[in-house]
Amino acid sequence: MHSFLELSKLFEEKFNVRQFPNHTETLYDPAQYILGIGGKRIRPVCVLLGSELFDEITEDAYHAATAIELFHNFSLIHDDIMDKAPVRRGMQTVHIKYGESTALLAGDVMFVKAYENLNKIHPANLQKVLHLFNVTASQVCEGQQLDMDFEKRDTVNFEEYVNMITLKTSVLVAASLQLGAILGGAGLGSQNHLYGFGKNLGIAFQVQDDYLDAFGDPDKFGKQIGGDILANKKTFLMIHAMEVASPAAKAELLDLINNNPADKVAKVLAIFKDCKVDEWAKELKQSYFKTALQHLEDTAVVSVRKKPLMELAEYLMVRES
Amino acid sequence: MHSFLELSKLFEEKFNVRQFPNHTETLYDPAQYILGIGGKRIRPVCVLLGSELFDEITEDAYHAATAIELFHNFSLIHDDIMDKAPVRRGMQTVHIKYGESTALLAGDVMFVKAYENLNKIHPANLQKVLHLFNVTASQVCEGQQLDMDFEKRDTVNFEEYVNMITLKTSVLVAASLQLGAILGGAGLGSQNHLYGFGKNLGIAFQVQDDYLDAFGDPDKFGKQIGGDILANKKTFLMIHAMEVASPAAKAELLDLINNNPADKVAKVLAIFKDCKVDEWAKELKQSYFKTALQHLEDTAVVSVRKKPLMELAEYLMVRES
Repeated sequence: MHSFLELSKLFEEKFNVRQFPNHTETLYDPAQYILGIGGKRIRPVCVLLGSELFDEITEDAYHAATAIELFHNFSLIHDDIMDKAPVRRGMQTVHIKYGESTALLAGDVMFVKAYENLNKIHPANLQKVLHLFNVTASQVCEGQQLDMDFEKRDTVNFEEYVNMITLKTSVLVAASLQLGAILGGAGLGSQNHLYGFGKNLGIAFQVQDDYLDAFGDPDKFGKQIGGDILANKKTFLMIHAMEVASPAAKAELLDLINNNPADKVAKVLAIFKDCKVDEWAKELKQSYFKTALQHLEDTAVVSVRKKPLMELAEYLMVRES
Repeated sequence: MHSFLELSKLFEEKFNVRQFPNHTETLYDPAQYILGIGGKRIRPVCVLLGSELFDEITEDAYHAATAIELFHNFSLIHDDIMDKAPVRRGMQTVHIKYGESTALLAGDVMFVKAYENLNKIHPANLQKVLHLFNVTASQVCEGQQLDMDFEKRDTVNFEEYVNMITLKTSVLVAASLQLGAILGGAGLGSQNHLYGFGKNLGIAFQVQDDYLDAFGDPDKFGKQIGGDILANKKTFLMIHAMEVASPAAKAELLDLINNNPADKVAKVLAIFKDCKVDEWAKELKQSYFKTALQHLEDTAVVSVRKKPLMELAEYLMVRES
């Protein structure tokens, strides 16, 4: 058995080769470029973790892990186009470096390459794996569309936001774990619990992310505090504040959102604190985290094998909150 | 056995339902929209034709045909974004009607839906079918990238152009026929000949298309004559003219391309005729068409079964040239 960090290294070693043909460089170099920007490879490592929970890691698990990482990068390229994002992990985004049309196509061909990797999986598991992958890929697209829809709306309620976040970010982590479980020979019950673990962990992570943007320690968080507030993003915190604030506080929030005064971040944070949004968010995160751990607990495997997944959970939740 | 037109109708009847879920309409309605614009459904019918050449048409053949049509429409949505095309078949393109971000996502999710349809195919054929589909999808992306690369270049030679056109348009027709053949139980030799038939037919069609843009009867062609010339498109005709024209004629062509005078179309056509580009193009088309028919001839099936494929070939080649 391997730790979370050992599996990260093992995956990185295998993945850190050219994933594309050496011809048509104008298409494939941009695709390779984003893979080189790095990232924590959490999703493909989830495939390996999910698999090793039940059995030794096979080549098929690596194929699925590679497919998941390619799919994730495909979605990053396309999301960056839609968000007009100039920078990712300190590097130029693909569409800034190579142009939007090439970025669009490089994403498309990366998606095909994901399926090519899935198609290396033993036929006995292929249909099941493809089905889960397809359902998940559709959900990720739906989540991204809902996110864009929400930007144009005045109000979004808590349930809608959880649903969007689940589709946009959590189901891919959940499906990665389940794909690993399928390839490790797990029964359906364990597959579903592992999926539930990943889904709830993903939501807990997003609650934490929204919390840290408002209340994190700038040195530890590594981003400017209040970025979401400045950008008028609908987050767990803002949505909850709108739901629980007094009419006066709500009016003030709307005024701050519409008029963007210089002291906007401080004033919004003060309202958040008044409404105890910070306490609420911490509890919400803990609640999803607890549900995640319960699913892991309920997975029919001896506890000692679950250690690397516990490490993953702690790795994702360790940040100051 | 069915004629080409009968199969078109059969496919259209099955395909003309909502292909997407009834939720997340902001994503799926745009995807459904382009399917409703119509088109001749030549590629999916090729799957059915390829299949019925060998055996009765199965549900699996319809699944593959549906996947091919969804893939084709995915590529149309994304190509229209890249080409900034406002209109397709007399209707607004998806990105004009719904915005670029939604069009991009609608294309992505249509691509997933194509794979969902492929995944309904019997496991015995799934891996083979997916492999051909993936190779072809990659090639279509490569062809589109090369087409964009060529636009930025001063010169493109004949071989490069044939390669680009083959990837961008012909391999999908070829692969559609081969997918049908695989699902109809054909041997590898017949599969390859059918692929060769489709590929060469596709190139012949493109030569014809380039020819008609310059020399077609406007009433029969249905488009403005000289559109490619006005847009300085590198076509079979222009590329060949640049290769065979005298230094003086070549200089005049370059001058016309760079300065776009009012009588540009007439003058370019005159040079084309001087260089006998029209005769050359007709012969080139015939040459590819002949190669296509030879592949059909060499397919190990009794002649009578090949009649619908002959009809397809004649349907595609019937236009005045």
